[in-house]
Amino acid sequence: MLVFVGMGLCGLEGLTLAGLREARGADWVYLEHYTSLLPGLNLRSLEELLGKPVRVVDRRVLEEGPGEILERARRGKVVLLVPGDPMVATTHVSLRLTAEKEGIATAVIPSPSILSAAPGLTGLQSYKFGRSATIPFRDNPSTVPYDTLVENAARGLHTLLLLDLRAEEGRYMLAGEGMEIMLELEERMGKGVFTPDTLVVVLARAGCPDGKVRAGRVRRLKGEDFGPPPHSLVVPGKLHFLEEEALRVIGGAEI
Amino acid sequence: MLVFVGMGLCGLEGLTLAGLREARGADWVYLEHYTSLLPGLNLRSLEELLGKPVRVVDRRVLEEGPGEILERARRGKVVLLVPGDPMVATTHVSLRLTAEKEGIATAVIPSPSILSAAPGLTGLQSYKFGRSATIPFRDNPSTVPYDTLVENAARGLHTLLLLDLRAEEGRYMLAGEGMEIMLELEERMGKGVFTPDTLVVVLARAGCPDGKVRAGRVRRLKGEDFGPPPHSLVVPGKLHFLEEEALRVIGGAEI
Repeated sequence: MLVFVGMGLCGLEGLTLAGLREARGADWVYLEHYTSLLPGLNLRSLEELLGKPVRVVDRRVLEEGPGEILERARRGKVVLLVPGDPMVATTHVSLRLTAEKEGIATAVIPSPSILSAAPGLTGLQSYKFGRSATIPFRDNPSTVPYDTLVENAARGLHTLLLLDLRAEEGRYMLAGEGMEIMLELEERMGKGVFTPDTLVVVLARAGCPDGKVRAGRVRRLKGEDFGPPPHSLVVPGKLHFLEEEALRVIGGAEI
Repeated sequence: MLVFVGMGLCGLEGLTLAGLREARGADWVYLEHYTSLLPGLNLRSLEELLGKPVRVVDRRVLEEGPGEILERARRGKVVLLVPGDPMVATTHVSLRLTAEKEGIATAVIPSPSILSAAPGLTGLQSYKFGRSATIPFRDNPSTVPYDTLVENAARGLHTLLLLDLRAEEGRYMLAGEGMEIMLELEERMGKGVFTPDTLVVVLARAGCPDGKVRAGRVRRLKGEDFGPPPHSLVVPGKLHFLEEEALRVIGGAEI
């Protein structure tokens, strides 16, 4: 059996009791943390918590050579710990389908995710979020985050913009860089959805004890230091008065 | 201090280690479970897990008379346990803002949520979900879920449809009733987005050990028994081949 267990948003403490039970009961435990950044994760503490060794796997193992994982899952119970909510990355879906097609039972243990923590932590209504997108690094440019924002903004919806990462290179995009890339896209595309006057919400280390939520104009937040990654952005659409109040009271916005 | 702690999707085990730590360290613990259904929740087991009494509060207390909660939060640490991810319900946002404006510090501990578990459990890509909506009971009719589906379908996006509940009356809408209400809306509105031929995914007890994911045509799934609530629906938009495969392999769809 192959069980995908979400580690949530921060360190070890985003693990649910269900996830902990599964991992403690597993014959083998693997951990990937390249599809997303899990700040404050300490491998030694994780092994102590689970009472067993944890093998860290990278993209190469998971995407090209998951043979050992599958072979073990045929004989016993394998838990694959993943940062954030499992199956949000295509890699996990592929691996799950490969296992199922080989007759290996699979299960998924949900955990906290930026997708629902973003509304939760900002006070913005979850049903008013349109589709989300990721802002890629400049060397891999894409208009998708801008197009997504245009589409959502036209309908008054909020947009969650995740920021690119390359765990192998230790690169994690920060809020300021994300805003600059969006301003560059604005300059090229010119639809007026992301300007220095646009209201934006920065989420830094969502779900961590030192997590931050700051709301304000791009002009003002662009140069601010929000501390270490992960960061993400929300561009609010049409605001209900309660949402506006939440951005003022929780995010310190001057609106 | 007032800390909102998410209980996740099922019983006690959706609680995260961070949530458990907060609740164990609290001076007072409250639980509301009317904004969402937490299947398999046992109050006695919860109190044993936390090592302290838990006071259950209903809509009346939380929305009209949260005076005791706020007064205690001024003097010590209050944890309010909520089903699903906290702050998804407006009630939580209102209470949080009231507390903050009275100078009471607040915090939010995220937990698993149907918003991210729906992509996670179905294998549908999270960034392809448009806005979500709730299908209300027939005595409180609304075209919002239908309009939302029209809007998302036009852009090839997936739609998560949550189902209404009235915990006070013990009423929880099941997938079949949700589909019938959508078919009635289709008859009135006629845009062809929800017909007996529409592909739909039923999520029953998402995040529970006996949770189910079933994909198929409305005609076929409408009369099927998915067991006890909570249920929710996903109407897929344009499917990537990996998503199509996931619905076949995981959801048993014949597509």
